[in-house]
Order: sequence, then structure tokens, then C-alpha cells
Amino acid sequence: MKVLEDRIRKDGKILPGDILKIDNFLNHQIDTKLMEEIGEEFYELFKDKEPNKILTIESSGIAIGMAASKYFGYIPVVFAKKTVAANMAANTYEAKEHSYTRNIEYTVQVAKDYLNENDRVLILDDFLANGEAMNALIRICDQAGAKIVGCGSVVCKTYQPGEQRIRDMGYKVEVLARVSHMSDDGEIEFE
Amino acid sequence: MKVLEDRIRKDGKILPGDILKIDNFLNHQIDTKLMEEIGEEFYELFKDKEPNKILTIESSGIAIGMAASKYFGYIPVVFAKKTVAANMAANTYEAKEHSYTRNIEYTVQVAKDYLNENDRVLILDDFLANGEAMNALIRICDQAGAKIVGCGSVVCKTYQPGEQRIRDMGYKVEVLARVSHMSDDGEIEFE
Repeated sequence: MKVLEDRIRKDGKILPGDILKIDNFLNHQIDTKLMEEIGEEFYELFKDKEPNKILTIESSGIAIGMAASKYFGYIPVVFAKKTVAANMAANTYEAKEHSYTRNIEYTVQVAKDYLNENDRVLILDDFLANGEAMNALIRICDQAGAKIVGCGSVVCKTYQPGEQRIRDMGYKVEVLARVSHMSDDGEIEFE
Repeated sequence: MKVLEDRIRKDGKILPGDILKIDNFLNHQIDTKLMEEIGEEFYELFKDKEPNKILTIESSGIAIGMAASKYFGYIPVVFAKKTVAANMAANTYEAKEHSYTRNIEYTVQVAKDYLNENDRVLILDDFLANGEAMNALIRICDQAGAKIVGCGSVVCKTYQPGEQRIRDMGYKVEVLARVSHMSDDGEIEFE
């Protein structure tokens, strides 16, 4: 998605530890117009899959889900909650997610009320790195017996295993901006 | 806002401790169509104030900010981050927020890059109870020298002090659904 790649080139910041920060239009300040374009792009990529629900994860995923939902006819967006405390609850689906960026383990939770075996779920998230977050969302859908019709991510790095890992599980994966290289002097290349 | 009040009456759950849970259309699952109507209502209430930025707080506030931004001509949405760890950083504005629901103290943070003295800020949030979260956002705007043009909340309880507290600080406050009573048998009344 060219407009997104251009924006990442312009505003993305490379931090130590191979971290790409896109705080000024997605992860802290949101460019809501760009977000709508991202939502529309996900619609184009997944409309034939006819999802009836979008599953994402707090916090930034909420903006992506909101933007995409409209194009799919205002299907509900469920955002999984992420907690460091492992407060197991009888009425939630849960999966562990290891964050490599922060080196901590999260518990990802979705209330059983909001996901079930009749759902056709489109999973959307901001970053697909090692695939930990998306994998947690997939396992939660499995617990619910929901059908996953596709997985979309705004950004991935092609040299990290997440994208292939999810694809190898048999899911359709679409990524809008695929970073192939980030150099120390701030250059970002796309595949 | 009648459609919202009707929805709260229908789907709101009253939990012990006088807690109103609206998880099935705002705080966990999002009804994105209703959210758009909420965004439009905030636009009608604050359009004459000409904000150039919406400030909200993760997680649910993001959906509200996203919905409202479009009507204001796609002004940026900045969402404050909430952390239990007090990792003071030189490049952020910070304020403490005491959560009565969870009985913990959060540090609310906004990067200095995304708020400054030229901003005309509309603060939006989901719940206005004791006004702790909104007060934290106000103090952050003060630190930035930004002008607050209004404060909007989706829900408040009229018997809690938050709404009046913020109004007493001199700000225009608008609340879309003002709960005046919640009974043990699940009845919810509005003012």
C-alpha cells in the first residue's frame, strides 16, 4: 500500500533493537484519514471472505478495527484485552503472548459472550513480528470454535517469522507494508 | 442521546460496587455504527469550538476518538497511554490517575511531540465517574500549554462528582447519557 509505505518512510523512527516506531500516525497519534484508507484496503483484500466480526487487540488495533468495520457493513469489532496479571476467569477465552519488544508475557483475553462457533472472524492487528499476538488471537478463536477467514496486519518485517508462521497454519495473511530492511541511518526499504 | 440510553438500558449490566458494564457495544465489543452516531453527536455539541485535535485515553477512548474525528474533518486523535509502572520519561507529559474501580494508581502519558501550545483540544472519554481520568488529561494539556476547548464523555452517573468537578474547573462538559439511578434488579434510569 503505497501511501502507507510513503508515510512509514517519512515518519517511521528506527529505535535500537530493530524497533520501528510509527507513533505519529498509528500507535499514539492517529491519522484517522490514513486509518480509513487502511480499513478500506483490508476490505478490498478480504471482502470475498465475508467476515461477520473483526477481532483485534488493544490498544492500537482498535483504531484499525474501527476503520475497517464500516466497509464491511459495520460488523462488530471485538478487541482482546491484554493483561500482565494472569487473572483466569471462567467466562473468558485466554491465550499467552510473549512480547519480544518488552520481554514480558501477556495474557490475552476475550469474553466468551463475544465470540462463538457461528462467527466468521477477520483478525486485524498493527504489527506482525514474530506472530505472537496474532497467534494468541488465533488460539482464542479456536477455543471459541469460530472460523478464521483471514489475518491482516498493517506492517510486518519480512525477515521476521510471523507472517510465514501464520501462513503455515493455513490462514490467508495480508500485510499492507512489508519492511524488508531498516538501516542504522534511518532508511526503510519495502518489499 | 436517546439511542444510547436505550442501548444502555437494554445491554448495560450492573455489577456489584455500582459498576455499569457496557462491554457489548463499547468496552470490549464495539458497535461501530453506534460509535459513529456518538462521534457525530460530539461533533454537533463541540463544532463551534473548532478543535484541531482530539485527546483521549486507551483503550476504549480510541474508538470514540476515531468515530468523532471524521466529523471534525479528520483531525488527529492522540490517545494517552496508561501504565502502572511509573517509568518517567523526559519526552512525555505525565499525570497520575487513581482508578476507583480497580483501586490502583495509573500514570497517564502523552509524548510531547503530539501536544503543544498551538493545539485546541477536545478531550473525549467513555466514562466520567470521579473525573480522575479526565482530570489527568486536563493536567497533561496544561503541561503542554494546549487550550482545552471542551470535554465530552459518553456516560456519567449524575450522583458521582466527576461531571461537576470538571465543570467547576471552567470547562464546557457534555455527556451523552447521564445515569441518575441504577437499582439492584437491573433498572437503569437517566436524567
